[in-house]
Amino acid sequence: MDQVNSSNSLTIAIVGFGNFGQFLAKAFVQAGHRVIGHSRTNYEAIARQLGCGFETSADALMDLHNPDIVVLSTSILSTEEVLRRFPTAKLRSCLVVDVLSVKVYARELMLRYAPEEADILATHPMFGPESGRGSWRGLPFVFERTRVRQHERCEAFLSIFRERGCTLIEMPCQEHDHYAASTQFITHTTGRMLAELKIASTPINTRGFEALLAVVETTVRDSFDLYYGLYRFNPNAKQELEKMQRALEQVRAQLEAYDRKCREAEARSA
Amino acid sequence: MDQVNSSNSLTIAIVGFGNFGQFLAKAFVQAGHRVIGHSRTNYEAIARQLGCGFETSADALMDLHNPDIVVLSTSILSTEEVLRRFPTAKLRSCLVVDVLSVKVYARELMLRYAPEEADILATHPMFGPESGRGSWRGLPFVFERTRVRQHERCEAFLSIFRERGCTLIEMPCQEHDHYAASTQFITHTTGRMLAELKIASTPINTRGFEALLAVVETTVRDSFDLYYGLYRFNPNAKQELEKMQRALEQVRAQLEAYDRKCREAEARSA
Ligand SMILES: NC(=O)c1ccc[n+]([C@@H]2O[C@H](COP(=O)([O-])OP(=O)(O)OC[C@H]3O[C@@H](n4cnc5c(N)ncnc54)[C@H](OP(=O)(O)O)[C@@H]3O)[C@@H](O)[C@H]2O)c1
Ligand SMILES: NC(=O)c1ccc[n+]([C@@H]2O[C@H](COP(=O)([O-])OP(=O)(O)OC[C@H]3O[C@@H](n4cnc5c(N)ncnc54)[C@H](OP(=O)(O)O)[C@@H]3O)[C@@H](O)[C@H]2O)c1
Repeated sequence: MDQVNSSNSLTIAIVGFGNFGQFLAKAFVQAGHRVIGHSRTNYEAIARQLGCGFETSADALMDLHNPDIVVLSTSILSTEEVLRRFPTAKLRSCLVVDVLSVKVYARELMLRYAPEEADILATHPMFGPESGRGSWRGLPFVFERTRVRQHERCEAFLSIFRERGCTLIEMPCQEHDHYAASTQFITHTTGRMLAELKIASTPINTRGFEALLAVVETTVRDSFDLYYGLYRFNPNAKQELEKMQRALEQVRAQLEAYDRKCREAEARSA
Repeated sequence: MDQVNSSNSLTIAIVGFGNFGQFLAKAFVQAGHRVIGHSRTNYEAIARQLGCGFETSADALMDLHNPDIVVLSTSILSTEEVLRRFPTAKLRSCLVVDVLSVKVYARELMLRYAPEEADILATHPMFGPESGRGSWRGLPFVFERTRVRQHERCEAFLSIFRERGCTLIEMPCQEHDHYAASTQFITHTTGRMLAELKIASTPINTRGFEALLAVVETTVRDSFDLYYGLYRFNPNAKQELEKMQRALEQVRAQLEAYDRKCREAEARSA
């Protein structure tokens, strides 16, 4: 990876320094930026290991570090509360970026809580610590320039993902949610259903079974909060869940009908 | 691929020249063997295209071609009927091989219907025209030498898979069924459930969603007969299906309980 030379180096605050926030922090540091974490929990030791600063107070985060970019990596459910308590006036000269897995809702929150002067970029890196463990080549990074006036700063942020090989896809938040919401929710629900079944590797896995094991691995590492966020803020989720249940019943009904048919035919020919 | 020189060339009859039988035929021809198909349906034209012979009568198959090896690639459900009608006495000098996806049941049928003089090899190539479309490297080929006295012929057959890069796994039929039955049945059921949901590719698929799309692709190409065979001849299948339904209900119950908890907390703090 090319290191950005220090004149292009950004100061990036990450609000919500949990699983995904730390994952992003590593990439930002590797790209040569100054990174400061901030979270409900004190992650000072972890931040130091990652080569980042850490502030427990949001005021200190803004006053002492004067970040160019503030990335919201809080859980979908907590983001509004975090923004409500945040000294949002201090975001005036910043680019505010979110990475929430639902986009219309995140965009709405940023437009509501960030000051008019702040630039806003809504993003969804469609991978995580598990699927992005190795190369990021070809992994989709979806974004909407919700309100961008300082283009160079925004491009510098986007180029972190571009340079790691992500496929950058510019797309309105509505369109993202249309595509992602149900596909993501179905993937997570399938993974969690199979995790409940406790499926496990055998010496003779088929490719298909290995794919399912990988889906389980990825989805159960994500927090239940993330899954719940998809469920709650995807208007179709309840319906998708019911559709999955009906689909499984349908498959079962097909098997049972075919079974009756075969057994009747066998009885007749016996 | 090395061509076997003609002195090592075997004559292999494939009984059940459907989806999987044709897939095997191609590989056998490529390995330099003489292949003759036989099936309920007349596949003469397809066989010719694949470089194989074809016989509509089982007697002609045995009398005119005198095969070294007879491979059963019939549907799980029809195999007993096919064997019942087969001139099994003519199998006396053959190696009888099956490729059914359930092994204890297939072994039992071969032991019951093949003459005592015939050698028997129970196999399960754990891939198909879809997952084995490209290289076979690393794909599992499970087998049990059920009753093998002419070892060289058996090894020549196994080496077709070995030379294409399959991972050969020698394992008693019981053990195969223990591992494979539920994992395979769960994979197929998941694929068929998602197919019922009509999941489809979007411009922004996650890796997990792409894995599920691939599982759907693979499972729905397999015949319903194959799926039904797994259901019927896997003693745990009914129970697995119920477990899947319960697991999905469980995931839903978790979401609904968490939703109530969050909304109550929000109401209190409002
Ligand atoms: N994981 C992924 O693969 C992935 C991929 C793309 C996008 N995302 C998005 O990234 C964001 C973070 O995801 P995640 O995987 O780290 O897990 P998450 O459970 O969705 O979020 C965890 C983060 O939210 C914070 N948080 C939770 N409740 C809070 C509260 N009441 N007050 C203040 N902060 C609170 C946590 O802070 P503390 O740790 O300090 O408690 C932690 O930083 C989410 O919006 C998610 O949709 C995740
Ligand atoms: N597809 C795979 O990926 C795969 C992988 C490993 C093992 N297998 C095993 O390979 C075998 C064949 O599988 P498949 O994928 O080709 O599909 P299948 O639907 O399981 O079997 C189709 C074959 O069974 C024959 N058949 C069906 N009903 C019959 C009947 N009443 N009388 C005579 N023949 C009948 C068909 O003959 P006609 O075509 O002449 O009608 C055809 O050759 C199965 O035992 C399966 O478990 C399949």
